[in-house]
Amino acid sequence: MPRTAETASFQFNHTMLRVRDPEVSLKFYTEIIGMDLLSKKDMGDFTLYFLAFDQGQNYKYMSEEERDKAKSAREGVLQLTHNHGTEKDESFAGYASGNSDPGRGFGHIAITVNDVEEACARFEQLGVQFKKRLQDGKMRHVAFILDPDGYWIEVVPSTLQL
Amino acid sequence: MPRTAETASFQFNHTMLRVRDPEVSLKFYTEIIGMDLLSKKDMGDFTLYFLAFDQGQNYKYMSEEERDKAKSAREGVLQLTHNHGTEKDESFAGYASGNSDPGRGFGHIAITVNDVEEACARFEQLGVQFKKRLQDGKMRHVAFILDPDGYWIEVVPSTLQL
Repeated sequence: MPRTAETASFQFNHTMLRVRDPEVSLKFYTEIIGMDLLSKKDMGDFTLYFLAFDQGQNYKYMSEEERDKAKSAREGVLQLTHNHGTEKDESFAGYASGNSDPGRGFGHIAITVNDVEEACARFEQLGVQFKKRLQDGKMRHVAFILDPDGYWIEVVPSTLQL
Repeated sequence: MPRTAETASFQFNHTMLRVRDPEVSLKFYTEIIGMDLLSKKDMGDFTLYFLAFDQGQNYKYMSEEERDKAKSAREGVLQLTHNHGTEKDESFAGYASGNSDPGRGFGHIAITVNDVEEACARFEQLGVQFKKRLQDGKMRHVAFILDPDGYWIEVVPSTLQL
């Protein structure tokens, strides 16, 4: 039951990250991470992309309109914002990961996986960059990979008692 | 159905944000936003807090251990990281919201609500700071509030076709 009646309908729908090149990021989040693209919204000088894991929703059988609507009815959505032009601007310095100064604040997004060793072996094979491999550091059951913009993605076993 | 068998178990479990003062942030995210605190992990010189909306899980009837375990079995979890000492360090400059340079990258988290006007009226009444009220700017159906560290929280109607 919700904490209060006033917040009973609230859901943590999405997290927004800016990306330099949507072509690269969409390939990464769909083909490597395994999310579906639910919606693309052209907003003039920027475009929004909404992605999420299909967990029984069967997005592939939905119309574009149904998928778009479905994105507002769940949690765990990733919103990528592309400010047009960054992908071909050679002077663009890139986005901050949030994990070093200046710019420290946001830390990471995390995905839970049933078999973290298998998931990491696959990421390795696909050429994904690691911030921390399973065997690095103290926490041997957790890895951190980097997305194309350098944002950290924690890879955690679903059963982890951390 | 999942995109690929290899990623079938993947879930977008959490988003991590650093917070200066956990007492202030926990009060905000539980009492104002309406999340439940599922788990608190002391990691030495920092502490992790895991929060999520109760959407039928009935966290209040779970044991501490059950709640802790439940946090890894869902999406939409917010992880707050408190590096000990920031709350009383007067020289601490605060965390970056990710929305201005230097440090631009992360944008916001978003909550969907059934009645955005009602939700915003309640936030107003509770003294929450707004980045953008419903009547400001072009997008009249969306508001942005600020959390205690200045992170942006988008407040979006659940039925929004954006």
